[in-house]
Amino acid sequence: MTTNFYAPPSAIRAGRVVLPDEEARHVHTVLRGEAGDEMVVVDGEGGWYRVRIDHVAPEQVVATIVEQREDVGEPAVDVTMALGLLKKRSRFETFVEKAVELGVHRIVPLRTVHTEPESVREERLRNVMVAAMKQCRRSRLPDVAAPQSPEALLAASEVEIRLVCHAGDDAVPIRRAVDEAGPASSALVLVGPEGGFAPSEVDAAVAAGCRPVSLGARRLRAETAGLAALQAVVGSTGGGAEANLEGRGQNG
Amino acid sequence: MTTNFYAPPSAIRAGRVVLPDEEARHVHTVLRGEAGDEMVVVDGEGGWYRVRIDHVAPEQVVATIVEQREDVGEPAVDVTMALGLLKKRSRFETFVEKAVELGVHRIVPLRTVHTEPESVREERLRNVMVAAMKQCRRSRLPDVAAPQSPEALLAASEVEIRLVCHAGDDAVPIRRAVDEAGPASSALVLVGPEGGFAPSEVDAAVAAGCRPVSLGARRLRAETAGLAALQAVVGSTGGGAEANLEGRGQNG
Repeated sequence: MTTNFYAPPSAIRAGRVVLPDEEARHVHTVLRGEAGDEMVVVDGEGGWYRVRIDHVAPEQVVATIVEQREDVGEPAVDVTMALGLLKKRSRFETFVEKAVELGVHRIVPLRTVHTEPESVREERLRNVMVAAMKQCRRSRLPDVAAPQSPEALLAASEVEIRLVCHAGDDAVPIRRAVDEAGPASSALVLVGPEGGFAPSEVDAAVAAGCRPVSLGARRLRAETAGLAALQAVVGSTGGGAEANLEGRGQNG
Repeated sequence: MTTNFYAPPSAIRAGRVVLPDEEARHVHTVLRGEAGDEMVVVDGEGGWYRVRIDHVAPEQVVATIVEQREDVGEPAVDVTMALGLLKKRSRFETFVEKAVELGVHRIVPLRTVHTEPESVREERLRNVMVAAMKQCRRSRLPDVAAPQSPEALLAASEVEIRLVCHAGDDAVPIRRAVDEAGPASSALVLVGPEGGFAPSEVDAAVAAGCRPVSLGARRLRAETAGLAALQAVVGSTGGGAEANLEGRGQNG
């Protein structure tokens, strides 16, 4: 089976995995899985298991672990992407899906001066993220924080690299900023909502240690900017560690 | 007015611009534009005009050009992105929108061994692209070619850099491949559909001069892979020329 499956850590013990109902139904009904088939199960917390199916019933799949690894598919740097909440929730969801694929560690919806007061659909976001984690063969499920202000986030964050996307005169290309920062194990990137950050928000971010960075000559939509920034940071920092990981696909 | 507007070259002559009906309605009804207001109009072929409105009626806006420039917001490299057609058309449309923002020059839908026989909705794609061009403040409207095979595309393409996304053992990280290729004015990147390229397709692409490149440790969805590859190429080649361009936004 070429797809990864998800089971929480509580479903994995004593060398066996019991798939959650929905995953079990998929194996039974869609994939016609049988005893003896092998598959990969991830636990969303870095656990990666190659398992062999012992038993398939309509809503139950039990399997035995034959190989265990850690952090398969995870990047060398923990990137927190903080993105202003967007008017269209579907755009935020597109961002979340692709951010998972590109290796985000944590997503923080930002409430800013120019943000519409809009909540996120937590259950739906989680489903999008689990599907993306399985599809892209990661082993960790990124965290989505509660919506908060940039100030609160910056005050609570301990990261090595802090960037704020804002193309003022003092901004440098993001790739140069990441290269100049050198190898790092953690980074935080702030991206504004549709209306951008207010000048006072940019000033506060800079005062809190953020370097202003630009993403090129075009004015990107917020979710596009978030993905481009994430790709620049994951692709530039400690990339060497990625080469040894299992789970590369045709596009990977 | 902070949004750019679109008018085809035929609507721009003798120092004046006549906006198309839909754009004129937007100026009149939504933005409440008035004589004397300034705005930016792009013609989709590199023409960029700062204009002053002479006259507003419900379906007619006439304006006088006060400044004219070329290729504002355009990258230094012409990148053609060839992407396998996707089962879900909405995913192809997401790719198109964001590829325009990230600076794509030309999009080629690929028919491949693993492609579902699915057509693109040309009219809808064009609307998505015009909106993205205006929003991100480019001046050129990228071209969408007719669906074709990788072989036909490669035979007809004259470009300096040719890449095929395929994480085999011989693939190198895309950024390294672009850096090693050096400055270039044109590039072609092939990305497979959901099922990936068939081995014979990869072999044919390599035989036609494509270098196999990888995009990291995760298996990206086709449209995510296309966007990550585009960003890597535009961000790495001749980026210096972008710094002088007008039209940077808050995220740009």
